[in-house]
Amino acid sequence: MFESAELDHKLSKAEFDAVVPDLRAKLLDMQVRLGRQNHFGVLVLINGVDGAGKGETVNVLNAWMDPRHIRTHAFGTPTEEEILRPFMWRFWRALPPRGSMGILFGSWYSEPILRRVERDMGRAEMDARIDEINHFERMLAQEGVLILKFWFHLAKDVQRRRLRALEKNPLTRWRVTNDDWNHFAHYDRFREVSEHVLRQTSTGHAPWVVVEGADERYRSVYVGRVLLDAITKRLDADAAEPSYAMPVAPIAPPPLDGVNLLNRLQPAQTYPPARYARDMEQLQGRLAMLVRRKGFDKHSLVVVFEGMDAAGKGSAIRRVTGALDARVYRVVPIAAPTEEEKALPYLWRFWRHVPRRGRLAIFDRSWYGRVLVERVEGFCTEADWMRAYNEINDFEDQLAKSGAVIVKFWLAVSPTEQLRRFDERAATPFKHFKITEEDWRNRDKWPQYVPAVCDMIDRTSTEVAPWTLVEADNKLFARAKVLRTLCERLESALK
Amino acid sequence: MFESAELDHKLSKAEFDAVVPDLRAKLLDMQVRLGRQNHFGVLVLINGVDGAGKGETVNVLNAWMDPRHIRTHAFGTPTEEEILRPFMWRFWRALPPRGSMGILFGSWYSEPILRRVERDMGRAEMDARIDEINHFERMLAQEGVLILKFWFHLAKDVQRRRLRALEKNPLTRWRVTNDDWNHFAHYDRFREVSEHVLRQTSTGHAPWVVVEGADERYRSVYVGRVLLDAITKRLDADAAEPSYAMPVAPIAPPPLDGVNLLNRLQPAQTYPPARYARDMEQLQGRLAMLVRRKGFDKHSLVVVFEGMDAAGKGSAIRRVTGALDARVYRVVPIAAPTEEEKALPYLWRFWRHVPRRGRLAIFDRSWYGRVLVERVEGFCTEADWMRAYNEINDFEDQLAKSGAVIVKFWLAVSPTEQLRRFDERAATPFKHFKITEEDWRNRDKWPQYVPAVCDMIDRTSTEVAPWTLVEADNKLFARAKVLRTLCERLESALK
Repeated sequence: MFESAELDHKLSKAEFDAVVPDLRAKLLDMQVRLGRQNHFGVLVLINGVDGAGKGETVNVLNAWMDPRHIRTHAFGTPTEEEILRPFMWRFWRALPPRGSMGILFGSWYSEPILRRVERDMGRAEMDARIDEINHFERMLAQEGVLILKFWFHLAKDVQRRRLRALEKNPLTRWRVTNDDWNHFAHYDRFREVSEHVLRQTSTGHAPWVVVEGADERYRSVYVGRVLLDAITKRLDADAAEPSYAMPVAPIAPPPLDGVNLLNRLQPAQTYPPARYARDMEQLQGRLAMLVRRKGFDKHSLVVVFEGMDAAGKGSAIRRVTGALDARVYRVVPIAAPTEEEKALPYLWRFWRHVPRRGRLAIFDRSWYGRVLVERVEGFCTEADWMRAYNEINDFEDQLAKSGAVIVKFWLAVSPTEQLRRFDERAATPFKHFKITEEDWRNRDKWPQYVPAVCDMIDRTSTEVAPWTLVEADNKLFARAKVLRTLCERLESALK
Repeated sequence: MFESAELDHKLSKAEFDAVVPDLRAKLLDMQVRLGRQNHFGVLVLINGVDGAGKGETVNVLNAWMDPRHIRTHAFGTPTEEEILRPFMWRFWRALPPRGSMGILFGSWYSEPILRRVERDMGRAEMDARIDEINHFERMLAQEGVLILKFWFHLAKDVQRRRLRALEKNPLTRWRVTNDDWNHFAHYDRFREVSEHVLRQTSTGHAPWVVVEGADERYRSVYVGRVLLDAITKRLDADAAEPSYAMPVAPIAPPPLDGVNLLNRLQPAQTYPPARYARDMEQLQGRLAMLVRRKGFDKHSLVVVFEGMDAAGKGSAIRRVTGALDARVYRVVPIAAPTEEEKALPYLWRFWRHVPRRGRLAIFDRSWYGRVLVERVEGFCTEADWMRAYNEINDFEDQLAKSGAVIVKFWLAVSPTEQLRRFDERAATPFKHFKITEEDWRNRDKWPQYVPAVCDMIDRTSTEVAPWTLVEADNKLFARAKVLRTLCERLESALK
């Protein structure tokens, strides 16, 4: 990986002065085009060895380009806010919206590489991390993000000389810390680990660019040139509207005998109101105690409600929140994405709402919109919703790894009962606002929703995040089942 | 994963009889179209629990379709030929050429799942295997293969009843073995392991289709319908010529200062002929002894020679083979692919020549053609050669895992020396045949080959398969360096 970056690459001052004015002008033009075309965001990762000019290069880029359209994020030790959430949370927040550039100085590569160098991470955990990273970057690429990963490299003797030179100069002495020399003592191991990681994560859609960092003029121009070439090429290609989809094999067709997960359920269940009142009080008390338990500060609770219109999602949610202190939970209603949200990868708007430990987030509709409404209505391509199953599983896996308990409900109402509720809403003045033309249109698409729901349950019911089907024609039964399931899942997590 | 396959799906005899004639006719038409279009091969994997009708379904498919265009491969315990080669070797041999179908009964999934069930494989190794499988299937999909993966499932009580029923019937008793009941004793663990594997390997381009196996009529029609739909859809799509490429970020541009791995070398080295004669004798003897060493039967040796025309590949190879017993080595000259080879994924023609343990294969040019001549001449798309670096690393990784020692030589000749050799060849009658118009055309493309060679070395010099750059203007020096490197690599492997 580093062969070509140990050749003492250099640019003389004269060469540098000759190329820079033109390069800067072209970079600025490119930025204008990027913003005007507004088709994709550019994510620039800056990583590598100490003393190889990472920080200086970021400064140069900001000086050469229009800094209003670049956002630079430096990631050091995680803040408390960040520690209490999944590892990737802080990086999601830093993703560049379409039409702009984000420079990430220290990225999802830094922590695993350093921990592996210090033998604080085993080979298997490292390989699992590499796998997660590859899934994540592939998802970004398929969402249209252009990913440019720079690795700043120095040969061992060059790094030694550079650290010594910085130390000798009173003006730069402050930049060499004990940490730098400690890292240098592990140079060989660091090189071996990072070479492994780079090779495993250098892909066609997100290849590493290794930059020899010794000569400031050389590395600045080289990085500028790579940015210019890569972004210009993509701008030209996007104008030609290429297709970015992997080939898609069709998902399994629905059962031939018409028997499916939904029509096998018995949505109508009996539940005597007197028993409901007693059970509800007990269940709400139980849930309230559970989220106050000491152990809950190591966990969070993520609850997803999905179901056809008028299935009773809202009223079930109110029964859950009725048990809770308003400071610990947040209800997140999911509607069509805003302009801001549309400018970022699909899952971004859900990552925003990931709760910290000790808290709950209740999603009234969720990321499953992609494999439900977006699939049925054709709001995204087949390739998009097909890959969404894996992306969603990865997302929930990361939530679970950070301690989240994930509970997902499909509220199953029968078509007859839905019709009854629609009519009731239409007839009751104060429920009038709850029924729209769109509800009737969705109802017509019931036959298309059924296979989408069954595929969703088959493909995203995982060990860490199983679906619970809730028979919802009887609202009392449904609410009690929801609360009971939440209590049981929390109890088993807090055991 | 199995939710929808535990619903007791059934087809009555009347329903079955009503749909099958039409289904068979359509399957036959589809086969004809597949062969006539001749754009892609179809790979069908058959896996799942015992007694769920895997074998019967394969028979049904062969009965319903034209068996001349389907090849069925059953994979049981590996043969000796197979054990002595990398794990994936036997599956590569079974890949269907374009225009045809291959049914793999028991595939790369069987062995890891069974070993994991029997706790003969840890979690980390399993995850590494899943990763390999995903790389492999993505490569196949990008090479145009349509992959259809069927998993035959039975709920636990259904499997118990089915095994008992088979046992009771004297005609089918033979089909239930002790192994079947042993497997059944591990039903829960088998289900858990296979669910994990299915979920991790169900991708947009190669999703799993789970088939409830209890009812013979149901499962046969279901599988037939999936095949028909999936292949027809792809035939229609291929007619519309879609693009299957992932978005590609450009590879790093060449160094700005013109310094690169090749022009930093000193191709002209001195080597007194007297010393050469002495060294050569000693080195050839050393190599001959090494491949006769007892430990070599756990290894194989894969040697790759690449270099510009007239760099001396042939003569270096003759010095290597001069040391060897003709029964243990094979020289594989790589020219343009044949029609048969073109009908299969790119790496297929190299997998064919993978040596068994205790043997050597010497490649005169190799799989690196994709990132050299094919890149430079535009014989494949940019996306194809960009992903080739990873695919080649995966390939060599699998060779190494099976015990292969991989040694790769780039014979670096200078343009001046090449010209001298060309002229010599043109002037010497018995060397005349060695110089063609194409050699001169390639020489003109030298400037395009240089970055391709540097990228290749940067991106495919791995721990298990590093490149050795050989200064080749002096043939004596080059040959001795080749032999010495081979001896050293073998010695360190046999230590």
